[in-house]
Amino acid sequence: MSLIVQKFGGTSVQNRERLFNVARIVAKTRAQGDDVVVVVSAQGDMTDDLIAKADEITHDASKREMDMLLSSGEQISAALLAMTLQELGCSAISLTGWQAGFHTDRAYTKARIKSIDTERIESELSRNRVVVVAGFQGMNRYDDITTLGRGGSDTSAVAIAAALNADLCQIYTDVDGVYTADPRKVPNARKLACITFDEMLELASLGAQVLNNRSVELAKKYSVNLEVRSSLTDLPGTIVKEVTDVEGMLIKGVAKDDNVAVISVLKVPDEPGVSFKVFSLMAQHKINVGIILQSVGRDKSKDILCTVPLEDAALAERLLRENQSRFGGSEIVVDTDVAKVSIVGAGMQSHSGVASKMFETLYENNINIQMIATSEIKISVIIKKADADRAVTAIHAAFFS
Amino acid sequence: MSLIVQKFGGTSVQNRERLFNVARIVAKTRAQGDDVVVVVSAQGDMTDDLIAKADEITHDASKREMDMLLSSGEQISAALLAMTLQELGCSAISLTGWQAGFHTDRAYTKARIKSIDTERIESELSRNRVVVVAGFQGMNRYDDITTLGRGGSDTSAVAIAAALNADLCQIYTDVDGVYTADPRKVPNARKLACITFDEMLELASLGAQVLNNRSVELAKKYSVNLEVRSSLTDLPGTIVKEVTDVEGMLIKGVAKDDNVAVISVLKVPDEPGVSFKVFSLMAQHKINVGIILQSVGRDKSKDILCTVPLEDAALAERLLRENQSRFGGSEIVVDTDVAKVSIVGAGMQSHSGVASKMFETLYENNINIQMIATSEIKISVIIKKADADRAVTAIHAAFFS
Repeated sequence: MSLIVQKFGGTSVQNRERLFNVARIVAKTRAQGDDVVVVVSAQGDMTDDLIAKADEITHDASKREMDMLLSSGEQISAALLAMTLQELGCSAISLTGWQAGFHTDRAYTKARIKSIDTERIESELSRNRVVVVAGFQGMNRYDDITTLGRGGSDTSAVAIAAALNADLCQIYTDVDGVYTADPRKVPNARKLACITFDEMLELASLGAQVLNNRSVELAKKYSVNLEVRSSLTDLPGTIVKEVTDVEGMLIKGVAKDDNVAVISVLKVPDEPGVSFKVFSLMAQHKINVGIILQSVGRDKSKDILCTVPLEDAALAERLLRENQSRFGGSEIVVDTDVAKVSIVGAGMQSHSGVASKMFETLYENNINIQMIATSEIKISVIIKKADADRAVTAIHAAFFS
Repeated sequence: MSLIVQKFGGTSVQNRERLFNVARIVAKTRAQGDDVVVVVSAQGDMTDDLIAKADEITHDASKREMDMLLSSGEQISAALLAMTLQELGCSAISLTGWQAGFHTDRAYTKARIKSIDTERIESELSRNRVVVVAGFQGMNRYDDITTLGRGGSDTSAVAIAAALNADLCQIYTDVDGVYTADPRKVPNARKLACITFDEMLELASLGAQVLNNRSVELAKKYSVNLEVRSSLTDLPGTIVKEVTDVEGMLIKGVAKDDNVAVISVLKVPDEPGVSFKVFSLMAQHKINVGIILQSVGRDKSKDILCTVPLEDAALAERLLRENQSRFGGSEIVVDTDVAKVSIVGAGMQSHSGVASKMFETLYENNINIQMIATSEIKISVIIKKADADRAVTAIHAAFFS
């Protein structure tokens, strides 16, 4: 007998039909003799509807009250799913975040889980009940309700799996697993049977958003076996774990991120402290800098380039211009007509041919590379936005055909 | 400085406009220097919408899960009202039932309040905050959420007022007070400045439903001064308290209840135990019997008549017929074409003219009286349903013109 945590997102529980579909999955798992803890998000557009209600009142709602408001969404779906399970003859009970023992810090709207007191959940499991937990929420030391931020239900599920030492944490989503490329864009994209936490983290941050990154980091930290699978098919999904089996596949996926801009600060003085001044500005304003390149100093000057999320490009440009006297430079250039295309795979670090194969493919397709960045398990290039889809298809074909 | 509890129903908080209206009332009270605790119901049709969601899944939902589901409605309106107060610059915080310290028994969907731990509310009041409490809900000894049943937010408000020893508990409703008759039916109905708890209880049970009876009983028990007033006008409402000032008004109101049926068991043996057998049957099946009349024994037989709520008439008839062999009788007659018209007033007991004036008025209007029942503060008659509105208008004119 195993203990399995199953997480279902908002679309999976959005109406009667989908609730029964989820309940059948859960009841089937239970019928196999496993203990099951289910974590649910709010139904469909519930969270957005509640945010709209608050927005009608104020654009500056207190974060504590937002958490009070939004946490009701998961409470509703948890109660409805428990009823649905009972209707199928499967003994079940719903618990809010605080009832399930989620203790968080006091950072309303983006709280971190500090500990989970599993006594109540374990007591309900011992009474042969499926425990349906409202995801995304917890309680702080003031007995106030907190929420974990967007994607928080994934984090709730992984945290419970870690606290209960569960055998598996299944994340049910709209897609049936992690693919070697976006299957809507690349028809012959393949589903991966297995991927490592690190590869998953790189793919997620590169725009192949299947799992919330925070939940993957948590799973890695506590060695929780994850499975990403679909609630609409009965197919096995993709297992995410520490080390994957040798399967001869050097790279795990090709991902595109076109939510990116390149900012160049040209001809800054080639002296210590310049980079620090530029990037501490970004950090102070919570701008998440991706790739950083610095040209080799020449003529006593150098160029600094970096990528930032597209939505932060205007802010970054304004900050740099307002503070340019502090670090100098001849020109500040912002290019929003770019995309980042990356290949990810833990195996590539020991195979020097991977990078050259990627570059060769781009060259053959007449796609110009503006920037290159590499890590042990990833190679990213910045290219023109218009070339991005073509690049993904070509690179995918080069590695997976 | 006083402490005032203000309760607002579902229509009073149903949208942005109404929330701001309520927030202005609360902020104005606060600005006068009083401490304010606000109790809210769920917005407009929220509770019915949630019930509909559950009904889609099952017609036999677990009561525990229903309470989990429905309590979210008041949590949402409490958070929204706290935001609205903050937007008006009024410091405020929302609390769920469990955060506000409502401990109940374990009777899901109709829990009784056992105690209120006021520590959190008092701590927030001492920080100069308006405390917005989600009505209708509490927590039982298992840390599970319970609800108090329909009208439960009135009960929440009175219970908090009692626990905090508040100076006044204001119940804001659609009407601006308690009237001498239904103002929609009787144009010259007068608003009462004051009414006793007992009079209010009689009027409520007679169909002039303004306040939930349980809340009036609780207010009477703990001597909580109530005020019924409108959230849409600034007029003073009606004060409900233990003893009203002498104001020369013998009767306080004329009320009609046409949700009633008369059941007659004719010619039962005139021997001990017959009434017991008839009414213990009703009690076993939770049928709420109103007026009971028993004719004087004659020819060794007597007639037993009683009123029951209209919706229970068929059940009562079936029970009596199935068990007729236990108490005998020649015939069982059910009359659903009736209404109960009553006058209520603590002053009437010492004025013998009241009853005769009522009967005279009915006689003058050619309305036949089928049954009469009196208590110290009430006289009720059962008449034909078609005569009821005419009877109310005539009696009201006789006493209030």
